[in-house]
Amino acid sequence: MTQVISDRRDIEFVMHEQLNAESLSKLYDGFADFNKKTIDLVISEARNFAVKELLPASKEGDQEGCQLENGQVTTPAAFKRLFELFNDGEWLAVTEDPEWGGQGMPRTVASAVAEYFNGANYPFMMYPGLTQGAGHLVEHFGTQEQKELYLKNMYTGKWCGTMLLTEPNAGSDVGALTTKATPNGDGTYSIVGEKIFISGGEHDLAENIIHPVLARIEGAPDGTKGISLFLVPKIRVNADGSLGEFNDVVCTGIEHKMGIHGNSTCSLALGSKGNCIGTLLGEENKGMKAMFLMMNAARLLVGYQGFACATAAYMYALDYAKTRIQGKALTEILNPNAQGVPIIQHPDVRRQLMLMKVNVEGMRSLLYFVHFCSDMAKYAPTDEEKAKYQGFVEILTPIAKGYVTDRAFEMCSQGMQVYGGYGFIEEYPMAQLLRDCRITLIYEGTNGIQAMDLLGRKLGLNKGKPIMDLFGEMQKTLAQAKEIETIQGYAVKVEEAVNKLAEVAIHMGQTAMSDKVLAAFANAHPFQDAAGDTVMAWMLLWRATIAARKLETAKKKDQPFYQGIIKSLQFFTETMLPVTLGRFAALMNTSSAAVDIEETMFPS
Amino acid sequence: MTQVISDRRDIEFVMHEQLNAESLSKLYDGFADFNKKTIDLVISEARNFAVKELLPASKEGDQEGCQLENGQVTTPAAFKRLFELFNDGEWLAVTEDPEWGGQGMPRTVASAVAEYFNGANYPFMMYPGLTQGAGHLVEHFGTQEQKELYLKNMYTGKWCGTMLLTEPNAGSDVGALTTKATPNGDGTYSIVGEKIFISGGEHDLAENIIHPVLARIEGAPDGTKGISLFLVPKIRVNADGSLGEFNDVVCTGIEHKMGIHGNSTCSLALGSKGNCIGTLLGEENKGMKAMFLMMNAARLLVGYQGFACATAAYMYALDYAKTRIQGKALTEILNPNAQGVPIIQHPDVRRQLMLMKVNVEGMRSLLYFVHFCSDMAKYAPTDEEKAKYQGFVEILTPIAKGYVTDRAFEMCSQGMQVYGGYGFIEEYPMAQLLRDCRITLIYEGTNGIQAMDLLGRKLGLNKGKPIMDLFGEMQKTLAQAKEIETIQGYAVKVEEAVNKLAEVAIHMGQTAMSDKVLAAFANAHPFQDAAGDTVMAWMLLWRATIAARKLETAKKKDQPFYQGIIKSLQFFTETMLPVTLGRFAALMNTSSAAVDIEETMFPS
Repeated sequence: MTQVISDRRDIEFVMHEQLNAESLSKLYDGFADFNKKTIDLVISEARNFAVKELLPASKEGDQEGCQLENGQVTTPAAFKRLFELFNDGEWLAVTEDPEWGGQGMPRTVASAVAEYFNGANYPFMMYPGLTQGAGHLVEHFGTQEQKELYLKNMYTGKWCGTMLLTEPNAGSDVGALTTKATPNGDGTYSIVGEKIFISGGEHDLAENIIHPVLARIEGAPDGTKGISLFLVPKIRVNADGSLGEFNDVVCTGIEHKMGIHGNSTCSLALGSKGNCIGTLLGEENKGMKAMFLMMNAARLLVGYQGFACATAAYMYALDYAKTRIQGKALTEILNPNAQGVPIIQHPDVRRQLMLMKVNVEGMRSLLYFVHFCSDMAKYAPTDEEKAKYQGFVEILTPIAKGYVTDRAFEMCSQGMQVYGGYGFIEEYPMAQLLRDCRITLIYEGTNGIQAMDLLGRKLGLNKGKPIMDLFGEMQKTLAQAKEIETIQGYAVKVEEAVNKLAEVAIHMGQTAMSDKVLAAFANAHPFQDAAGDTVMAWMLLWRATIAARKLETAKKKDQPFYQGIIKSLQFFTETMLPVTLGRFAALMNTSSAAVDIEETMFPS
Repeated sequence: MTQVISDRRDIEFVMHEQLNAESLSKLYDGFADFNKKTIDLVISEARNFAVKELLPASKEGDQEGCQLENGQVTTPAAFKRLFELFNDGEWLAVTEDPEWGGQGMPRTVASAVAEYFNGANYPFMMYPGLTQGAGHLVEHFGTQEQKELYLKNMYTGKWCGTMLLTEPNAGSDVGALTTKATPNGDGTYSIVGEKIFISGGEHDLAENIIHPVLARIEGAPDGTKGISLFLVPKIRVNADGSLGEFNDVVCTGIEHKMGIHGNSTCSLALGSKGNCIGTLLGEENKGMKAMFLMMNAARLLVGYQGFACATAAYMYALDYAKTRIQGKALTEILNPNAQGVPIIQHPDVRRQLMLMKVNVEGMRSLLYFVHFCSDMAKYAPTDEEKAKYQGFVEILTPIAKGYVTDRAFEMCSQGMQVYGGYGFIEEYPMAQLLRDCRITLIYEGTNGIQAMDLLGRKLGLNKGKPIMDLFGEMQKTLAQAKEIETIQGYAVKVEEAVNKLAEVAIHMGQTAMSDKVLAAFANAHPFQDAAGDTVMAWMLLWRATIAARKLETAKKKDQPFYQGIIKSLQFFTETMLPVTLGRFAALMNTSSAAVDIEETMFPS
């Protein structure tokens, strides 16, 4: 039996050999305990909890789903015990400040926790995940009183949290929201409005739910500039921390979705009886800025969700391909006495597994690197370095969300394909992974929105410093790789793509500021694709550089793993990078066909 | 409201302006009635039935699904009435011989029927579709007695039919099957075995089900060479055509699938009580050959199923994009007074719609063309032409199944993306289309199997004559297109891809016969992708050639449609063809990484 969810060895490779996560312990006192031994212990514990507790409840969560009756939402039965165990294990706020109940873990280290937990049961993980995110908002923007009132209960999972942005007519266009906040004169506000698509908006896992809510204070400007953030508990909290009366936050419906059945997606009516009270979180009309802090973390988390589905799909597909006997070996096709072989021996199945291997490895390195950057953005020795790493987080977030989930969904579909007919049967794990994964391309900003963010905001951020810094990092890896005989041929190919990315990025940036702006944005998503491919190529080259060096002295038993990493690079450069170059060529065309075509030319 | 399911105007364009379906009426007496007027009437009736009857039952079919109790399968309630109406309309065997109850319609014309019906409710359509296929087998290989006993009842939908190939250990490797047939001495055989994944294997729509069954006669050779085809009714049929006793074909389970819930997917035990009797259909040990006749038609049908999901998704997405107001126009982003616009005005949404438009149009032209070829293979004036068209059917079938369903699934996913969060909600049509579509990549031979068929069998078929003939057709289109000023620039680009395909096809063919055979087959699927892209480019160019000529004299109101066809070609050549060239470049590498990597280098 192959491991489930994820490949432990590769997690360790990224954590220690690629990113040297232990080095963070020397940068910040709060991380002092996170030496290699502790990190490995965290990984082991996360894996154990994922495999023993989260994973077995996954199918049950999918099949039972959530029910709404009289405004009460019931989650799958297994989730209640799970949430208790989860909180007993103190898993909810692993990266948050210990002062408020967090574990103070580097995000880099928490990457492995996120991978295992989301790969095991991400619909469940959305409850604690959103709670952590909401708590993070309170921690950053809350008054001392708000923090004391809410934070510890949230970080320990006694209370849950959510994120209330979307309304029926305000989805991608958050600025169109109409939820109103009216000052009560005592520092509180009366909130009235309707929110939809609220993950975990109502459920039975905790005694209270704290909702950060975007709303417009009466008289505030239109659009995003007039939006403020409020803290609205489901049940009011008295000054002594005890629970008060119901705060008129009513669940009016839950969605029947294609996937993530275990997570309740709610419509919430706030103040329909005029009795919903909230407090301002942060400054008036600065709600969007505050929300962006949460959204960026949430976008990265969505990248992890998608990726985790892909790695789980890969491990299942691999196990299936090693054990499912079907057909003769291609070279024995004319031998009447030849026996059936495991399907991993068939070239087309191997291609699919290789595609999954390469994508999963590249995505893992990328996502962990972004977390590493966010640690460095806070704790790097100099302000200059901090700014550099923050720039990396900014520019890589749309790729870590948009590009990663696009590929992750493809990998889930690929995994289903390896299973053949069994892949389509709900008894096997592939269907749920594919269904669950699909929403990651949509929520927290569709992948099209991510692409527009990359092209429209991130490329030109700080006069292009982040992207230039990124090229600098890539050049470092290229220089190292070109010195290693076994991979220098691949390095030259990756360099070609990196140079093309630089050329195309300048071209796209200029086009976006010209009168061809619409054509530029009609090519934003293809640009994200090609840029993502190049970042993946860089990651795979980085990994191979390390692996090639290790191979010089590695023991025999350790060699296959490192050789496999070099094979991944070979596969990517030989089969996928030429396609990436094709994407770049297309981008240089910057086709305006999609924006020039008139609406009457579409079917009516 | 935009049309549902499909674009009537484009169907007519392909039927009349591209393929001149009416011309078939002059080639064969049996087609004499199918002039343009009749063809349009057929299209209208098919659309009416699809929109008024099939489509409304689609969601119900998905939600109710099928139930198994005591060996009896209940289909969704609405399906019973639907099947009666369907048979009253004589829709089951539209292309079959009128002598046996068919309508004798050209396949080209039936393309539109297939598109509307499958786009409306393809899980339902599988019941009559498989019945037609099974009937077709009886018509071709049955004795006069078998035909008289079964055929009319099947073609009129009084009885249904299926196709029993797969067993638990014989999926893609059909030759591994173990179902046994023992001669009873009276010309009949006793059948014993277990079959799985049988679509419509048991249900309540008809009083009898006729199963063509692959089995091995005792003492027959191993592998595919020892497989015979039998006709096994669920309920025995007496010599006078009346129903006899139960034939020991027991449904032991139905699958819970990700999609096509309305169609029962059954496990069948044959002769578990020693009481299952069948008659040989065709010759002993020639079962595979007979089955291939059905499988090839079935593969094409699967192409239609996938395509129909894609066109339905496109039409819904288009309608949604025209009516959903969200966000300001990109050019008005800084104008505080700008109003929200329909999302079709946003460049990224337009790109997605354009991608769907191009794919749907190209797939439609391709699929209808393959049907046109199968008509011509039977009724072209000369044997030489017949052989040529049969060659087109052979070489295009893996593309019409494998490439088309790969793209179709992507288009369903794209359509979901246009809907944003609503796309993931089962209340809207996208989730079901995506779920239903996914199986088309798997059944009737996975798309990997199709790719191996293309590379391993079809490229070299008849010493490569079909592929050479295909290039000949492409050259004709290129020559015409290059004479038209408005599209000659695109024609040059398409020509580049066609030439590359020729070069790569030779390279791949040679590699497949060299000691790099495994590497060749590890690249079979990418080859199918690139070959399919090129065929699509040819189709789009063909369409644009017609449209450009029509534009010279078209009335104002007819112009947007034709202009849209040229825009499709522009979009494809500018944004997608460069990527295709990248795929060709990768194929020239013919990477062996996937087959060279050792199993120990994958995770354990």
